[in-house]
Amino acid sequence: MRVAYQGESGAFSEAGAIEYFGPEITTLAQESFDRVFQAVNSQQCEAGFIPIENSRAGSIHQNYDLLAENELYITGEYYLRVRHCLIALPGTKITEIRRVISHPQALNQCRNSIKEFEIATSEPVYDTAGAVKLMASAKDTTVAAIASRRAAELYGMEILAEGIEDDPSNYTRFLVIKRQPVVVEKNAKTTLVFSLSNQPGALFKALSTFALRDIDLTKIESRPLVEKPWDYLFYIDLAGTIENPVVMRALENLREYATMLRVLGSYPRHILSAS
Amino acid sequence: MRVAYQGESGAFSEAGAIEYFGPEITTLAQESFDRVFQAVNSQQCEAGFIPIENSRAGSIHQNYDLLAENELYITGEYYLRVRHCLIALPGTKITEIRRVISHPQALNQCRNSIKEFEIATSEPVYDTAGAVKLMASAKDTTVAAIASRRAAELYGMEILAEGIEDDPSNYTRFLVIKRQPVVVEKNAKTTLVFSLSNQPGALFKALSTFALRDIDLTKIESRPLVEKPWDYLFYIDLAGTIENPVVMRALENLREYATMLRVLGSYPRHILSAS
Repeated sequence: MRVAYQGESGAFSEAGAIEYFGPEITTLAQESFDRVFQAVNSQQCEAGFIPIENSRAGSIHQNYDLLAENELYITGEYYLRVRHCLIALPGTKITEIRRVISHPQALNQCRNSIKEFEIATSEPVYDTAGAVKLMASAKDTTVAAIASRRAAELYGMEILAEGIEDDPSNYTRFLVIKRQPVVVEKNAKTTLVFSLSNQPGALFKALSTFALRDIDLTKIESRPLVEKPWDYLFYIDLAGTIENPVVMRALENLREYATMLRVLGSYPRHILSAS
Repeated sequence: MRVAYQGESGAFSEAGAIEYFGPEITTLAQESFDRVFQAVNSQQCEAGFIPIENSRAGSIHQNYDLLAENELYITGEYYLRVRHCLIALPGTKITEIRRVISHPQALNQCRNSIKEFEIATSEPVYDTAGAVKLMASAKDTTVAAIASRRAAELYGMEILAEGIEDDPSNYTRFLVIKRQPVVVEKNAKTTLVFSLSNQPGALFKALSTFALRDIDLTKIESRPLVEKPWDYLFYIDLAGTIENPVVMRALENLREYATMLRVLGSYPRHILSAS
């Protein structure tokens, strides 16, 4: 099975895809999210694995746009805990390190650890896995990189410390996209996108279609439409599958208010274990 | 007046702060969002200017966390259209450019333009303004950078093309934070953060406190709490000020359901003009 993801080899997206699908898949690095969708559309890949929200950085609207534009289905979700590693040339001692390189967000997320390790200089580069690549080719034992365990393994580097992020509850939620939907019997989640015109109480009416049928929402997010500053797009995840007649009726009801409604897929719910 | 922002000199945050406050302010670059809050808390700066959401990348949860943790107030908002420039050494012709450097997101946002300009290579670096700095010091007329107009001016570089982003509706919303709240009479917006325990229909009840009082919501966003996977934080912006007795009563009502509620400030509403 071929799975497309955005980023360099060893990126957290690739690590997540392997955790989700298993080590036997072939991962294909893409330079942008658009390319991930293209790879699935063109049948070059059977699935795409895209980040949709991060606990610190929020929802990735660009991927919601691509979901709405493409005729693909969400068939799964996966919560990946973002565990950063301090990575160096094999045989390096932590006390030798004078400089650490990584993506600015990763450096920022490991600030306390960098201080504890007494590393004098932090230097931002464009990508976490790219930092390991740079460090590996420079062959300098005073430099370390911060990236995923997979990036260390890929370049044959040594992990000096693991789980060095200051906030242990940092995670990224990924979605699996395929050309065909899946049928889910139990513990399903359904993702919708819809728009409402600017009328007082429109959102309240829309939500009442779910509340009055005891359908639980697990995510709700509004997004202003720049072209029409008074109108909104809404992203909703609900507990249940579109195969369920009650959910179906709620969606029929919502269509009466919504100026646009797309069901992006029903899929098995993943719950992040508190490990 | 001294204003703290995150990023390098010439960053979009700095450009936005100058558009909002005027050219007479002194801007102070900070290496992280935490430091922006610290600079205001410690009275080193009178105000901070922080991005809170981007039309493509979504809400910046980290800044919501910092707003909830610090005893500061939102006193204003500003929508900045993200206009990218192609920047090179003075006297360079666009046809000479072989390589373009910038932050990966900026390169991605200008993909069509890069193709039109027939620039062969895109190279990611950690920051847009940092790309201009690198390009300026390399003194190579075959290299261009993508960044803000301000970054070009700061380093005395030439703007070969402006507004080269593929999506002209790309904007970032910024918030102004100060130690004291402001009083707003008209066209106010109020930002709240609250949490609800996981009970069926809890969100619907919470929203009804506003809907039944005809208070319009301009933003709603849920955020799962990783430590308690069934509980949620909610971010709400409403039209109106907390000075208004109807809004006050709605908030009192909400306190009956919410396990936590913080009002982050009432401030004048900014509407992005469709220029």
